Amino acid sequence: MYNIIYSNSGVCASDGFFADGVSAGLKKDGAKDMAFIYSEDECEVASLFTTNKMCAAPIKHFRQMGNFKTNFVLINSKNANAMTGKAGIEDIDEVLSASPANVKNPIMSSTGVIGVRLPKAKIIEGMKLFDLTKRDSAAAAKAIMTTDTFAKEVAFKVILEDGSSFNIGAIAKGAGMINPAMATMLCFITTDAKVSKEEMQEALDECVKTTFNAISVDGDTSTNDTVLLLSNGRSGAYDKEAFKEVLFKVMHFLALEMVRDGEGATKLVTYKVTGAKDDRDAEIAAKALSDSLLVKTALFGEDPNWGRVASTIGASGVEAYEEKLSISFDNLCVYDKGNLYFDAEMEKKCAAVMQHKKFTISCDLGIGDGSFKAYGCDLGHEYVKINADYRT
Amino acid sequence: MYNIIYSNSGVCASDGFFADGVSAGLKKDGAKDMAFIYSEDECEVASLFTTNKMCAAPIKHFRQMGNFKTNFVLINSKNANAMTGKAGIEDIDEVLSASPANVKNPIMSSTGVIGVRLPKAKIIEGMKLFDLTKRDSAAAAKAIMTTDTFAKEVAFKVILEDGSSFNIGAIAKGAGMINPAMATMLCFITTDAKVSKEEMQEALDECVKTTFNAISVDGDTSTNDTVLLLSNGRSGAYDKEAFKEVLFKVMHFLALEMVRDGEGATKLVTYKVTGAKDDRDAEIAAKALSDSLLVKTALFGEDPNWGRVASTIGASGVEAYEEKLSISFDNLCVYDKGNLYFDAEMEKKCAAVMQHKKFTISCDLGIGDGSFKAYGCDLGHEYVKINADYRT
Repeated sequence: MYNIIYSNSGVCASDGFFADGVSAGLKKDGAKDMAFIYSEDECEVASLFTTNKMCAAPIKHFRQMGNFKTNFVLINSKNANAMTGKAGIEDIDEVLSASPANVKNPIMSSTGVIGVRLPKAKIIEGMKLFDLTKRDSAAAAKAIMTTDTFAKEVAFKVILEDGSSFNIGAIAKGAGMINPAMATMLCFITTDAKVSKEEMQEALDECVKTTFNAISVDGDTSTNDTVLLLSNGRSGAYDKEAFKEVLFKVMHFLALEMVRDGEGATKLVTYKVTGAKDDRDAEIAAKALSDSLLVKTALFGEDPNWGRVASTIGASGVEAYEEKLSISFDNLCVYDKGNLYFDAEMEKKCAAVMQHKKFTISCDLGIGDGSFKAYGCDLGHEYVKINADYRT
Repeated sequence: MYNIIYSNSGVCASDGFFADGVSAGLKKDGAKDMAFIYSEDECEVASLFTTNKMCAAPIKHFRQMGNFKTNFVLINSKNANAMTGKAGIEDIDEVLSASPANVKNPIMSSTGVIGVRLPKAKIIEGMKLFDLTKRDSAAAAKAIMTTDTFAKEVAFKVILEDGSSFNIGAIAKGAGMINPAMATMLCFITTDAKVSKEEMQEALDECVKTTFNAISVDGDTSTNDTVLLLSNGRSGAYDKEAFKEVLFKVMHFLALEMVRDGEGATKLVTYKVTGAKDDRDAEIAAKALSDSLLVKTALFGEDPNWGRVASTIGASGVEAYEEKLSISFDNLCVYDKGNLYFDAEMEKKCAAVMQHKKFTISCDLGIGDGSFKAYGCDLGHEYVKINADYRT
């Protein structure tokens, strides 16, 4: 037994962690564009990175460092440092050599436009603005935003039965290009739990499947996706089960925040697939739904076009039969194993469900026990506007 | 040696074929919504159908007929007769039993909204308007349109060295939901060549790979996709090589017409991938580009965001390396094996290329000899508008 208490301190909730965001002039409007996370003690690091073969320089740089402890993460927005080759990696070394005096094995993370060299001078100047005694998680969360419309942070304190406690907190960015393979997102998680690197990695690997890997904004996968989990062990407390549960809560909350902030999104939709041959089939079908342009535009139009749902499942490659499938909008069943319940009245009722900001589309394939929940949003004019004009 | 002459008679170019379109009141505005193709002689039929597991009733009906010759195809728009189960197949039998007296093994093809029973009475009434002596391919092409903004037809006459000749002509519809696995499209091809069913099927299977299977509008795959090739052998003429070449020309022309008419599309883009490990890798990469929402919206914004091209290739799963890749917009190379040629002046030049209605994005992966060309369009506000309001 343990208690979980929400905290609003984000990445600074854990004892001994500091963070802030500053403006280094990378963004045009003087908005915050550089952040740091600093820990008084050296931290173990667990990580997840994009599977994109054009992965960005910061990811290559991290991998080159091998096994290490760190106490400093530098993050910039507006420039992804991707497709910049060896020069991009050398740029990171140069920038990090100007890190504050007392940091150890500093690491860097970037997000923004691909194919432009880092503005090193600006970033080095910007680092001079860092005050390592600051605990402003919200400012750090703001500084790593790109097309995000709101900053994303969350933290929980876990109180174990023996009275000991630890914290897990995080900041994240991600609004577009979020794909079922963890894309265009950055997430930095800190904890003062006394957890080993191996247990952190195991927990991350498990939690990502049903959180960051279950969301979709536009089906594209980026060059920079990164999740870092840093532990300084300060609390001396740990419970494997509690740690995993709360890490899941942190990642799940942030994953849904990203979908809610999907570029131009007005709706957060849960795709619940049950009755699939196995969990893998359920996952494929659920993600196909959250990725389908025709489903997304129907959501935007608040049009209960269940035929597109059926067609998308049929096209997804999973085992499925017209005569075994059922489809519901929240608790309204529109199609059940060959029976069409979709008349004018039902259409009106379903359209009313779709006017909500949050609802669930459920599909039972009627075959086996496989199930999966994916999360997606609608696609409207704002998405087109944001992405047609991204670089300008 | 043979000569190929363009004809504007579409599906009626081949000797002995007739076609027309009528209005049966399925579309609200009195537009043509039913078409027929009729041949005086019975025809061999070759076919290609959707791979969607929720395939529509007309496809199931066709498959149940086994091996047969026909001389009559009935086509309706506005209702897909999909997700309608056994009743949907029985509806087809009922409708076709009211076919004109002199037809043999009539077949039916449908396109439109999924999950609504066929309006049988209207269709049976509509058939009474058919005049089997009409040769109005354009009217038939118009009647099978859904969100298409223009009718699609083409025909060629082939004159062989000995002076004998045959014709191949076609009509098609397709504007949205067109996917690299032949989707939401119907295409009816007629020929008076003296070709066997087996040779027709072989030619269709080969030509589809680089035509209808190489285009993408929105990556979705429909329940109704159908290509039918009917031959009545009237001309007595045939040449295998010429037949395949001209069939390819017909299908390639119509495939590009569909992309050009992609819902809300303003640009027709060729994605030419070369230097891939093998042709399969090239195909995967080229189709990933034509399917990418981020690439499509950049096209719409006329933003030469080549980083999105690189990122999409990296995410596509094919073998690719940052240091071996080159990317060009038409003949302007913006990235070559680690060298960034993209400065302010190049950006201006590339933006000028993107203002054209047609251009090519070339990616050389620098690994092997694999190559593939895919065709796609941009995604703009009109796409969202069309698909948010499709059923209303």
